[in-house]
Amino acid sequence: MNIVFSRDSQVRVMENTVANAEKYFGQLCSLLAAYTRKTARLRDKADQLVKQLIDFANSENPELRATMRDFAEDLAKVQDYRQAQVSVVGAPISGLRAEIKKFKHVQNHEIKQLKNLEKLRQKSPSDQQMIISFPGSGAETNVQRAAVDSSRTALQLEEMVDAFQRQKLRDLQTFFSDFVTIEMVFHAKAVEVYSSAFQTLEKYDLERDLQDFRAKVQGVSGRHDTWPLASTNPSPSAPRSLDSQVSVQLKRANKDPEYPPCVAGWASH
Amino acid sequence: MNIVFSRDSQVRVMENTVANAEKYFGQLCSLLAAYTRKTARLRDKADQLVKQLIDFANSENPELRATMRDFAEDLAKVQDYRQAQVSVVGAPISGLRAEIKKFKHVQNHEIKQLKNLEKLRQKSPSDQQMIISFPGSGAETNVQRAAVDSSRTALQLEEMVDAFQRQKLRDLQTFFSDFVTIEMVFHAKAVEVYSSAFQTLEKYDLERDLQDFRAKVQGVSGRHDTWPLASTNPSPSAPRSLDSQVSVQLKRANKDPEYPPCVAGWASH
Repeated sequence: MNIVFSRDSQVRVMENTVANAEKYFGQLCSLLAAYTRKTARLRDKADQLVKQLIDFANSENPELRATMRDFAEDLAKVQDYRQAQVSVVGAPISGLRAEIKKFKHVQNHEIKQLKNLEKLRQKSPSDQQMIISFPGSGAETNVQRAAVDSSRTALQLEEMVDAFQRQKLRDLQTFFSDFVTIEMVFHAKAVEVYSSAFQTLEKYDLERDLQDFRAKVQGVSGRHDTWPLASTNPSPSAPRSLDSQVSVQLKRANKDPEYPPCVAGWASH
Repeated sequence: MNIVFSRDSQVRVMENTVANAEKYFGQLCSLLAAYTRKTARLRDKADQLVKQLIDFANSENPELRATMRDFAEDLAKVQDYRQAQVSVVGAPISGLRAEIKKFKHVQNHEIKQLKNLEKLRQKSPSDQQMIISFPGSGAETNVQRAAVDSSRTALQLEEMVDAFQRQKLRDLQTFFSDFVTIEMVFHAKAVEVYSSAFQTLEKYDLERDLQDFRAKVQGVSGRHDTWPLASTNPSPSAPRSLDSQVSVQLKRANKDPEYPPCVAGWASH
């Protein structure tokens, strides 16, 4: 009975090992799949942003148009890398899940076989009686064979769980190393692309853009004909300079308490 | 009439400039806010993953437990940086939106005033008749004053739109530079943290973990008493090695067509 109890305990430990792996791997897989889906949603939203930036670019003067298009292109590149991240992370997740399922199936079969043999080995007090009453009747051989088969199956199961544990630990290490590498590659690529985007934005020539804008406004109004007072009445209260009241007004708007603090510091990097 | 038409055209160009900015900035703000929300959802999901990893770690042997905890901690760090990204991007978005709103309000007031003055200047054929019939009656002064005021207001409006355009372009440049810098900082930090996480995973000692596992299994079964056949019957069909049938079985499972291709290459970086 002591042997049977111990063997049962061992089977329980093995069953627990696999059940535990199944439980946690299942949860981790679900969460990682959800994490991947959220990443995909972020990519979709960024794709919409790219589209919107191009629409906006097309409504602007050439200088800003070129800058915004280049910027949108860079943002799209980051989404391409994000897409690669999504599809590459997806594969090991389902692989992990499929492996656990298969192992579970094999293990169940072995445990069932072990239990049957164990039963056979103990079942017949009649066989045991036969061995005592009529040695050499063949009953002895049956019980011995069942004992040998049962021990061999138990050993196989122990080895299987040992191999399972090794495979599980190795898979975990590989899986998370893969996950981290995929994330690292994505983030490194994003840094690279955003660096280029930053340079694009730095190169933008605001003054040229503003000249285009003024030409457009004056082109429509034929300014010098239609604003005769502009040159004859350069009122000091409305000078044509950035220090005009309006500019001051806009600057003040920037300092309004309702205006959230701008992270101007970032831009100087 | 020509003057009025041109001035109206100019007012239309100015109105369009602001309306256009309002439209696109509004859309961009909404999309950026949605992008930030999706980022926040991704952070939430990763936080759940961190929690799950810690639960899993606590169910494992000391070696894997320490590795998984360190890894979870790194993953949590990335989420802290993501949180910073979310809150820092949020501020300039609402700032941009608030600024456009305020400008729109000021502009509407100026345009209204301009239209009123323009109306006053043209309204009264009676005033114009008065000027011809009774020069010096004061009607002349009224019309002249309306003309001067109208021109001055138009000029102010033109300057205001010019200043608006300059401010808009500068804000755009600053906003996107800020956005890109925030993203860059986040991604650079993520690369840094994931590099450390990768090293944590590389340092994991699988063999030590497996020894702990075997000790646990044998501790429960009191192996040498309960598996008497293990040493007397080292069946060649079930050797205690990684090359056992089970191990082969697990390896085969890896090559199963149902098993998605593993990105084993990544792990070797």
